[in-house]
Amino acid sequence: MNSFIHVYTGNGKGKTTAAFGLALRAAGAGKKVFFAQFVKGKTYAEIEAVNKWLPSITIKQFGRGCFIVNKPKQEDIDEARKGLSEIKRILQWGSYDLVVLDEANIAIYYKLFTVSELIEILKERNHSTEVVVTGRYAPQELIDAADLVTEMKEIKHYYQKGVEARKGIEF
Amino acid sequence: MNSFIHVYTGNGKGKTTAAFGLALRAAGAGKKVFFAQFVKGKTYAEIEAVNKWLPSITIKQFGRGCFIVNKPKQEDIDEARKGLSEIKRILQWGSYDLVVLDEANIAIYYKLFTVSELIEILKERNHSTEVVVTGRYAPQELIDAADLVTEMKEIKHYYQKGVEARKGIEF
Repeated sequence: MNSFIHVYTGNGKGKTTAAFGLALRAAGAGKKVFFAQFVKGKTYAEIEAVNKWLPSITIKQFGRGCFIVNKPKQEDIDEARKGLSEIKRILQWGSYDLVVLDEANIAIYYKLFTVSELIEILKERNHSTEVVVTGRYAPQELIDAADLVTEMKEIKHYYQKGVEARKGIEF
Repeated sequence: MNSFIHVYTGNGKGKTTAAFGLALRAAGAGKKVFFAQFVKGKTYAEIEAVNKWLPSITIKQFGRGCFIVNKPKQEDIDEARKGLSEIKRILQWGSYDLVVLDEANIAIYYKLFTVSELIEILKERNHSTEVVVTGRYAPQELIDAADLVTEMKEIKHYYQKGVEARKGIEF
């Protein structure tokens, strides 16, 4: 079977949630999913849901508990690079039907690893594995290498009205 | 608690999947979700997943098993209007934390009901309920009434290479 590379990027709400929705759909079709989260390191409500109810989805985080402000720390780089090596093995191995690399674009944006490193790993993957890469600022090289690219574009957001993030809706 | 209206629109992949991802996140936070699908009437893999594993998400379809070609039939209109009355009761009742109206924009596009009818129902809702409306061609009146709008914009799609929809990825 042929498999493809999806990219969900842009500044709008819906990138990570679309990846989780796709993971749910894949699980419903009997597929095995590996859901990696770069940069992020906190337990979000969607992770609680997956861990409680969806055993065919494995989630692993390669980030710290807080967002990167200005410059990444060595710990951020170490975590992301550890994730990238694990992803490399998983993609060569090919035993997952769908692998999500949530916020990998942000890891590239903060120079935790390079887009060339990621593309190399994607090219060398077992081609039975579908891959989804999410995060703002998808680099052009990744867009060129991808088969499906959606830009989630913010038209209107209630953050602008001062609404704070709520559990179960934003995280 | 204040609640909001989200709209996911545009021609790109990720609208329905983002709504399912949000439903999963809400379920993980202990919230109750009602997921209505207009126009659609087939059992997709994400529905199998929800029905099997996620009892706090209720899915109901108000469409026929096939897409509308050119002109809707009376049956399409009847199904959608039945859905709209049920949604009206559910939103006034307020016992769900999140209500998704998947493809409601398409129902409006095919004139199965009007955008004014939908906005009226949204305005009269119990304001503890968050609402997500999905589908291409979101009308401007709905965008104006919404609090958060994301346009899923197709940058690149493998349909263009002749790839057919696959179970667990597209449906």
